[in-house]
Amino acid sequence: VLDAATADATDPLAHLRDRFVLPDDVTYLDGNSLGPLVSGVADAVHRAVHDEWGTGLIRSWNDAGWVDLPARVAARLAPLLGADPADVAVTDSTSANLFKVLGALTAGADTTARPVLLSEQGNFPTDLYVAAGVADLRGLALETVPRDALADRLAAGDVAVLTVTEVDYRSGHRHDVAALAEAAHAAGTRIVVDLAHSTGALAVDLPAWDVDAAVGCTYKYCNGGPGSPGYLWVHPRHDVRTPLQGWFGHEAPFDFSPEYAPAPAAARFLDGTPPVLSMTALEAALRLFEGVDTTSLDAKARALTERFVALVDERCDGLGVEVVSPRDPAARGAQVALRHDDAFAVMSALIARGVIGDHRPPDLLRFGFAPAVVRHADVEHAVDVLVDVLTSRAWDDPAHRRRPTVT
Amino acid sequence: VLDAATADATDPLAHLRDRFVLPDDVTYLDGNSLGPLVSGVADAVHRAVHDEWGTGLIRSWNDAGWVDLPARVAARLAPLLGADPADVAVTDSTSANLFKVLGALTAGADTTARPVLLSEQGNFPTDLYVAAGVADLRGLALETVPRDALADRLAAGDVAVLTVTEVDYRSGHRHDVAALAEAAHAAGTRIVVDLAHSTGALAVDLPAWDVDAAVGCTYKYCNGGPGSPGYLWVHPRHDVRTPLQGWFGHEAPFDFSPEYAPAPAAARFLDGTPPVLSMTALEAALRLFEGVDTTSLDAKARALTERFVALVDERCDGLGVEVVSPRDPAARGAQVALRHDDAFAVMSALIARGVIGDHRPPDLLRFGFAPAVVRHADVEHAVDVLVDVLTSRAWDDPAHRRRPTVT
Repeated sequence: VLDAATADATDPLAHLRDRFVLPDDVTYLDGNSLGPLVSGVADAVHRAVHDEWGTGLIRSWNDAGWVDLPARVAARLAPLLGADPADVAVTDSTSANLFKVLGALTAGADTTARPVLLSEQGNFPTDLYVAAGVADLRGLALETVPRDALADRLAAGDVAVLTVTEVDYRSGHRHDVAALAEAAHAAGTRIVVDLAHSTGALAVDLPAWDVDAAVGCTYKYCNGGPGSPGYLWVHPRHDVRTPLQGWFGHEAPFDFSPEYAPAPAAARFLDGTPPVLSMTALEAALRLFEGVDTTSLDAKARALTERFVALVDERCDGLGVEVVSPRDPAARGAQVALRHDDAFAVMSALIARGVIGDHRPPDLLRFGFAPAVVRHADVEHAVDVLVDVLTSRAWDDPAHRRRPTVT
Repeated sequence: VLDAATADATDPLAHLRDRFVLPDDVTYLDGNSLGPLVSGVADAVHRAVHDEWGTGLIRSWNDAGWVDLPARVAARLAPLLGADPADVAVTDSTSANLFKVLGALTAGADTTARPVLLSEQGNFPTDLYVAAGVADLRGLALETVPRDALADRLAAGDVAVLTVTEVDYRSGHRHDVAALAEAAHAAGTRIVVDLAHSTGALAVDLPAWDVDAAVGCTYKYCNGGPGSPGYLWVHPRHDVRTPLQGWFGHEAPFDFSPEYAPAPAAARFLDGTPPVLSMTALEAALRLFEGVDTTSLDAKARALTERFVALVDERCDGLGVEVVSPRDPAARGAQVALRHDDAFAVMSALIARGVIGDHRPPDLLRFGFAPAVVRHADVEHAVDVLVDVLTSRAWDDPAHRRRPTVT
């Protein structure tokens, strides 16, 4: 393994780090939860507020191109998915988008032959809540099984749709989505994948994976800003309807026709008026990825997580932490989770020292290695601080036990 | 009728106008489509981008109170609805919110006894698209009848839910919602009202009206910014489930429980991660209404529209325009529509002269009189310019016939 300085000096993505606005005293390992501010975004939002809204007023729907924002942002996001922009819709939240694509793909399902909507135990909660809601609507039963049981469960042949998240939000376990899609299709099952912890960090190629639909989030590795819009992708072989039919998904919204007629391809999954300020921030943030290949992001994410795991193995033996993420880098996303009995307090102590990761209950320390943001030197520094916190028991202080709302 | 100068000098809401950032050369009569920028909003958004996101990063979910934004904004919006904040959720788009409340109120409907989802012909298109989608999901038939036939249609007793918009987006016709709710309930029908063209301009009292649910928009008279979040209100007598079950609507999102359990009251209708930048703009914009009674907004809207109608009657005779909006001010919202054979070109000529209203196909000029924004003097000026455009045939110029995407 190269030393960190050499790895950074030879990193083909090193220039991306300079595009972020990050406080000097922070080592940010939480880009998997909220990506940091990209330079240019603040100016774009300022312009949208002052000039476009404040001065242009209603005229900006045309003059500033607000009406084309969903298509423009989809065009910027599509390369990160290996996708045709026409098959991508940037809109709503990840939850709402999962609802829409699951609703679309279960319409007219034969609930006698295929009564099951399948997911994975431990999938991100909102995915399970959404799936439960769709199952209720469609007369399906939501069933969840452990990761290793998915293939067998599919083989029973009674599953209408499988929905999984590529990278587990806690462990960082990464599915082989192409293999899962093959198994699903062999069993006559459709598959919808959530790429919340993939897009902007890992190599994604939706058409090659041949899934039926995908959804994802843009406020993590895409750095769109807090609560920035979600997106969805639907395989062009599906000419399906969204249950949530709104005017921005109409083929001609400004004809004000009383009859709904879906827009072509994924644009039909737009619904309400797009959130212009949020979309503007996201559009500006996505410029970061111009000309960046997702395989290079993937390779750097792997190198960073390998370095972190190796350093933890080497330096944290006997300090009460254990690597929970898969040790096979091909089975791991851009994050690493460590288990510790007092994980919340340890993370609080790390954050107090400028190393920002996060905590997931009950006992996980979660570190994200956004490949556009994190340097190899940051990984070394984070482990230095982690070792210091663990050996000094700095975390064993009541100040680090106060629980806020969001953990 | 008072002269405009005296009316403005004695207007108890006159101070609100000074809170808006408006170009000097604009007379803005399109606050019913996009409310103008409120002072303080730009600074709040700047802070959210630079300080909260850029510097605070993930910590701002707690430290900057992002996690409480939906509740804080609901508390600011509730007085404009006469509502308890607990019954209000600020989230998603108006379209998505209508989908959720219609979905919630039609769950378990007896589709044999009550097979109809009823709406009004000419209701805003997205409301009809959403209703058609929900009807499909629930095995109901969407039926639309003219405004005057709603009461009779309800009396047939086979309508599960009625959904109408209080103020018609074209004509400005205003329903007596309380009377409609009474008729609906007498027929065993639930009623959902869209307040997109009401909230922030008219007197709204949802509990007194006794509707079952309401939805609305915050980028019009609430000045939340382009595409700002929608909202919904559900009568506290209804303990219903949303079809779109997401994690921010869970009773304890950060417990990451695999089982969905709805949050209390309307908060269960939240779903995805809230759009922080858009919510921040809206929160700042709603400060405008602190201490403002909706009956005073309603009274001023009425005075402004009455002045406009009177001046058009007096000065536009024989100039090719006709008042389409109801002449009874009690049956009219805060807007007035005029019909003209070349409405698009006339509006284009008005906008070129700084009087910004909008056009709705095929032949309507639409003028909005946001009571917090518009002065009586603005009404006089707008009619001056209208008379000038019509008498000079300034609109009859090819430059005013180029159609943009959004009209």
